[in-house]
Amino acid sequence: MSDSFLIDNIGSLVTNDPALGEGILGLVEDAALVVEDGLVTWAGPRSRIPEGAARERFDAGGRAVVPGFVDSHAHLVFAGDRTREFEARMSGRPYTAGGIRTTVAATRAATDDELRANVRRLVAEALRSGTTTVECKSGYGLTVEDEARSLRLAGERTDEVTYLGAHVVPPEYAEKPDAYVDLVRGEMLDACAPHARWIDVFCDRGAFDGDQTRAILAAGKERGLVPRVHAGQLGPGPGVAIAVELGAASADHVTHLSDADVEALASSETVATLLPGAEFSTRSPYPDARRLLDAGATVALAADCNPGSSYTTNIPFCIALAVRDMNMTPAEAVWAATMGGARALRRTDVGRLSPGARADVVLLDAPSPVHLSYRPGVPLVAQVWQNGTPRLP
Amino acid sequence: MSDSFLIDNIGSLVTNDPALGEGILGLVEDAALVVEDGLVTWAGPRSRIPEGAARERFDAGGRAVVPGFVDSHAHLVFAGDRTREFEARMSGRPYTAGGIRTTVAATRAATDDELRANVRRLVAEALRSGTTTVECKSGYGLTVEDEARSLRLAGERTDEVTYLGAHVVPPEYAEKPDAYVDLVRGEMLDACAPHARWIDVFCDRGAFDGDQTRAILAAGKERGLVPRVHAGQLGPGPGVAIAVELGAASADHVTHLSDADVEALASSETVATLLPGAEFSTRSPYPDARRLLDAGATVALAADCNPGSSYTTNIPFCIALAVRDMNMTPAEAVWAATMGGARALRRTDVGRLSPGARADVVLLDAPSPVHLSYRPGVPLVAQVWQNGTPRLP
Ligand SMILES: [Zn+2]
Ligand SMILES: [Zn+2]
Repeated sequence: MSDSFLIDNIGSLVTNDPALGEGILGLVEDAALVVEDGLVTWAGPRSRIPEGAARERFDAGGRAVVPGFVDSHAHLVFAGDRTREFEARMSGRPYTAGGIRTTVAATRAATDDELRANVRRLVAEALRSGTTTVECKSGYGLTVEDEARSLRLAGERTDEVTYLGAHVVPPEYAEKPDAYVDLVRGEMLDACAPHARWIDVFCDRGAFDGDQTRAILAAGKERGLVPRVHAGQLGPGPGVAIAVELGAASADHVTHLSDADVEALASSETVATLLPGAEFSTRSPYPDARRLLDAGATVALAADCNPGSSYTTNIPFCIALAVRDMNMTPAEAVWAATMGGARALRRTDVGRLSPGARADVVLLDAPSPVHLSYRPGVPLVAQVWQNGTPRLP
Repeated sequence: MSDSFLIDNIGSLVTNDPALGEGILGLVEDAALVVEDGLVTWAGPRSRIPEGAARERFDAGGRAVVPGFVDSHAHLVFAGDRTREFEARMSGRPYTAGGIRTTVAATRAATDDELRANVRRLVAEALRSGTTTVECKSGYGLTVEDEARSLRLAGERTDEVTYLGAHVVPPEYAEKPDAYVDLVRGEMLDACAPHARWIDVFCDRGAFDGDQTRAILAAGKERGLVPRVHAGQLGPGPGVAIAVELGAASADHVTHLSDADVEALASSETVATLLPGAEFSTRSPYPDARRLLDAGATVALAADCNPGSSYTTNIPFCIALAVRDMNMTPAEAVWAATMGGARALRRTDVGRLSPGARADVVLLDAPSPVHLSYRPGVPLVAQVWQNGTPRLP
């Protein structure tokens, strides 16, 4: 395909630009899209395609086109899997050897190439289901060297790299967690900051408390990293308040929220990123998306791919869950997985298909974006363009 | 691939034969499978592959192999979709024009080739996600001609054809439902019996009551059709009792069950077929699989693909739902979608991978069958053999 092409005969086009079409999705029926040098240069109804806009023409055959999914929360740098732990949990059997520490041990023991292969495999898998932008956290190294290595390897596959030294206190610091916090905001931060854009803390019971979270994020900010926070997954806590206070791009999980938390999110730029895959795979109650949406918060959907609590890269699956189990409308869920994810990563070049956006384009084997929830579990992605380049065979 | 081949280096093989391996799945690790003339002739550990068993060798690369899924409940002969009805329902908006009757009107208006294309599309989609046997019902024609046509077209794609003239009372009989029952068990049955193996009735509120159900199924039995029943989807009712009384192969949905119903299922050959896709897409409570399993009933999982309440063909998705939302273990869910489906169709040649079975074989991009629920939403099917023939490119 040349540098300039036209995707024509689109049954239903999600632009996410309300100025271009209907509703929050900026939906245009019987639409077309012009791509030049990897960017969208025009989007609108077929009847108004600019003359001589592009040489090559791709016929979408009346199918739907949506922006590439923006998955703003993923843990891809790891080794091993936790099949037996999952099986035991879902079978109601005790399993004591599990947890993040299993993955930490396997990750530390892995070679660079093994970790690279894991990231590559999962990024490719995500791409096949329509994800064109994916964030990636460290957090299974938990030594200075292994955290820096994780970020370096993540950076080979994505620009959205997040330093999560504060994922869990590693076993060797079990008796001296504050010494670990000092490491995370000291020497480990020094080694990691050059490789990351974001800093994240798992602020929850059994992980890091409010004071620790604030100290780590503040240190990261001084090094130019922008905060994001794992907040309120396992129980209520100060995570959301700290996220908003420190200007975090996103507070993630937010399953347990006080009224003040909801108000804080609604009146800030901090995005509420919901991760229903985690609730799915841990049989936990889902976050209350309607409460957040009705209050006016910006909601994103992400897959939270990790081997312990949400081993999926599949954003259409998360969209279907969001509609079924979090009472989001089909349109709200699609928006959250595209524009919402972009907001959570403070990106204006992705998550939309309007002039100036990156040509990250997903063609569905379906006439409407509603089918992402109407046809749950069915792989509907027929083609993915990334920066204007087709990526599926 | 020749008539005789070896699938070697299988990380984990589900035989569903407890004599061959561990647990209800008859799991063999580090396994191999010999296929001759479309049948499995040997399954077991690699260390005991019979000498000279097969010429060609396929290397599974340590991945898992499971029997092809047996989807015993599907409505594939229809035209149109119901996107707007789904969207309105999930958005909490009223939508009065929907329902089965919309699909009936579209189906009656469709040409044979349009209906053929729909069945072909959905059977192919199901195959890509590992379904090698699929049942198919009529029920959107609801005239003598349109029901017979539906069954004839279904029969072009599957042997498991079910006459469901008693899906709903069509609009033209709204004022005289008993006249419709007479048609279903009279002239329509005469026209349909030659094209079907099974007869089914939607026994539920708003559909057919106990007396109507019994009369229709009894008439079908006299014509050599074997009963199956849509029972207890929308509320409690006599469906399960009638199914067991008449020796039905399966009672399907069974979301609303009395203690007597559970006992009847547990002490009969009638399979309880659970269809979690329907509860997913209608935001309804899931059936209580544990109650059935713990009582000793045989449980099957099927996708219930239809354009109104469960527009999915994806059995791995149903397996993940069964584990997450119906408290089935990962092994029970895989068994229910393979051997359970076979039992519901009274088939002994499918649903297992042991000597004498059809070589309907699914290779997963995963080391274990647990990944079907551990990796929800992720398309994991790498290859499908049907009667020993590879079906994916
Ligand atoms: Zn996370
Ligand atoms: Zn049905």
